[in-house]
Amino acid sequence: MKLDVPATPIVVPGFRFAGVAAGIKESGRPDVALLVADRPATAAAAFTTNRVQAAPVQVGLPRAASGRLQAIVVNSGNANAFTGAAGVAVAEEMCRATARLLRIDPTLVLPSSTGRIGVALPRPKVLAGIKEAFRLLRPDGFHDALAGIMTTDAFPKFAVEHLTVDGHPVTIAGMTKGAGMIAPRLRLVPHATNLTYVLTDAAVALPALRQALALALPETLNAVVVDGDTSTNDTAVLLAGGAAGNRPLRRSSPDFGAFSAAVKRVLASLARMIVLDGEGATHAVTIRVEGARNRREAERAADAIARSPLCKTAFFGGDPYMGRVVCALGNSGAQFDPERLEIDVGDVPLVRGGRELVGKVEKRASAVVAQTEFCLTIRLQEGSASALRLASDLTVDYVRFNSDYRT
Amino acid sequence: MKLDVPATPIVVPGFRFAGVAAGIKESGRPDVALLVADRPATAAAAFTTNRVQAAPVQVGLPRAASGRLQAIVVNSGNANAFTGAAGVAVAEEMCRATARLLRIDPTLVLPSSTGRIGVALPRPKVLAGIKEAFRLLRPDGFHDALAGIMTTDAFPKFAVEHLTVDGHPVTIAGMTKGAGMIAPRLRLVPHATNLTYVLTDAAVALPALRQALALALPETLNAVVVDGDTSTNDTAVLLAGGAAGNRPLRRSSPDFGAFSAAVKRVLASLARMIVLDGEGATHAVTIRVEGARNRREAERAADAIARSPLCKTAFFGGDPYMGRVVCALGNSGAQFDPERLEIDVGDVPLVRGGRELVGKVEKRASAVVAQTEFCLTIRLQEGSASALRLASDLTVDYVRFNSDYRT
Repeated sequence: MKLDVPATPIVVPGFRFAGVAAGIKESGRPDVALLVADRPATAAAAFTTNRVQAAPVQVGLPRAASGRLQAIVVNSGNANAFTGAAGVAVAEEMCRATARLLRIDPTLVLPSSTGRIGVALPRPKVLAGIKEAFRLLRPDGFHDALAGIMTTDAFPKFAVEHLTVDGHPVTIAGMTKGAGMIAPRLRLVPHATNLTYVLTDAAVALPALRQALALALPETLNAVVVDGDTSTNDTAVLLAGGAAGNRPLRRSSPDFGAFSAAVKRVLASLARMIVLDGEGATHAVTIRVEGARNRREAERAADAIARSPLCKTAFFGGDPYMGRVVCALGNSGAQFDPERLEIDVGDVPLVRGGRELVGKVEKRASAVVAQTEFCLTIRLQEGSASALRLASDLTVDYVRFNSDYRT
Repeated sequence: MKLDVPATPIVVPGFRFAGVAAGIKESGRPDVALLVADRPATAAAAFTTNRVQAAPVQVGLPRAASGRLQAIVVNSGNANAFTGAAGVAVAEEMCRATARLLRIDPTLVLPSSTGRIGVALPRPKVLAGIKEAFRLLRPDGFHDALAGIMTTDAFPKFAVEHLTVDGHPVTIAGMTKGAGMIAPRLRLVPHATNLTYVLTDAAVALPALRQALALALPETLNAVVVDGDTSTNDTAVLLAGGAAGNRPLRRSSPDFGAFSAAVKRVLASLARMIVLDGEGATHAVTIRVEGARNRREAERAADAIARSPLCKTAFFGGDPYMGRVVCALGNSGAQFDPERLEIDVGDVPLVRGGRELVGKVEKRASAVVAQTEFCLTIRLQEGSASALRLASDLTVDYVRFNSDYRT
């Protein structure tokens, strides 16, 4: 679905950006991006849990683990995944080329790639693109970089928050790309969904930055389910440059809660945009499971609905009938008593006392599910654990698109 | 997809059948079926693992567990699932009405229902249908009963095997209904997929009959994945009437292997038909995972591919590109080294040495995936466990159908 997002200029003091068309995409659209901090920044990051890790993930993971990064170099149009040792060599070369131009250590550069799996990344093109992007780096190049990371996205996805930390005005700006091959992974947290970069000029100590990311992920990026396939390349990076001049924010600082909440709002906005731009999507459904015995069962129940082709086609059809949702819950492995199960669509109670309610209630529910965005609340009444999923529907266009396109 | 199945007359000595239109389906098509043995038959059965069990499953499970059944009463057009205590009462009444007409004990009657979830089963209609079906019971009514159990099926699904047991000619005949809400369940075996009834005139001791069913299920009905949603109503029953006059077959009997193999062939034929008739399906893909560390990982790997919307839309598109299959394997939780992973499409090697092969091989693979039925072989090279899945593709028609229809 198309979302009108005004391309307001975004500036994060201490950061420069660029995006160029290097000819990796056949379409000729931008496909190389640079995000650069003036000085080494504090870095928190999360990566895919797919066993097949793309070359840039293999290269970037230990670098992000150090907690310090100064530049991110991205190409779109080719995932550099399932490309063997040659792929790793190209990812390392992307970092070395970027570092040489910036005169920094290559281990301060994180590489990312997104696009088709299993095809060699055209080395000369990406290296030429990096050179050109370096020349174009500028403080107001945020949208150029964002254009360079997009693949099947219908619109650019970004979000900005302003707040005061330690008396200093601070900006938090995030960009992401989404569309397909998107799902959270249970059990191993934190992890990321697709390419997401959040930059702030606040000074933040590493443990506080990591905690802000860890607190934000479960109900934002990790709650997104487009098609249930977790990519080989998913990467989320949060960089704190420190140009705002505040005393480094710690977990014990008075402003940590406000900072952490702002990071979560940025990621929540990005997550919502990813779902609204799910391949072929016409509905974004927030699935909230409450009253599960434990968090794992809550997530399984929410996932079962978010991934069920029958539920997702019903969301597409705009049908408030809950039989498929009950069936998916029954398959989820979560414990519940069908007689005590409660399901609401929006604020309309639809399932009570082991039955679907009909009549007036059904008509009101039809109006709710006709909306582009609506909420499904499931109360299992077995405990106090909850989970959230943000799911797109499964549409004719999803199938058309993915039977034509090579991810 | 439409499969031309000749409606050859099927007779299983000692069994009578009937199917009638009782007005449960709005279409006016047959919706009540009776399958009756002349005497109590030995019975092996398997049921859904969905936590939400339909009323007929709740009623039928303890009866099947006794190992003796004489009649099966089925309605289509309404699942009698998520219908509370009232639903259980109607399922029991279906059995009592059948038993009264047949002058047998109600506990010898197994009920089944299939259709929409969460709607009260119209009691007077189904009881009138049972009366009429009783009047029409006849030895050559197999196809009438089969018509009565169908819902969204495009064609009737049945299979017959003839063999000799203990010097006596024996028939094994199976009928099934499929189409949507179909997937196997891991971890809890045996279990069934949708409504399947297999009848034989052989005399078979209960442990041998149960073993024949347990041996056949994993690579037949339990291997089927249409959409990954396991129904609330799945039931598979194997009845041995004994009219053939052979000495009761035991697990130690010389002919047990041949009998067991014939049961598996019947269920394999039915499973293939279910996939070919998956809602909107245009391809039936056999996914064989070999060399897994253990059976659970083999099943997870095969399931990840069989359920992945990205893989299933690629099967629809007829694209032999394996990036999505590798990605799905990486998400499955099964252990493997991407460098040693091998994937063949038909007899064409496509993935070797951590890369996708291209060129001539790709062209040959394109010809393979253009076929209606083809095989995908994955060798993980970590151990000796294997698993099989029979998957339909995900098509525009699947989405159209399921966004319109209420399961």
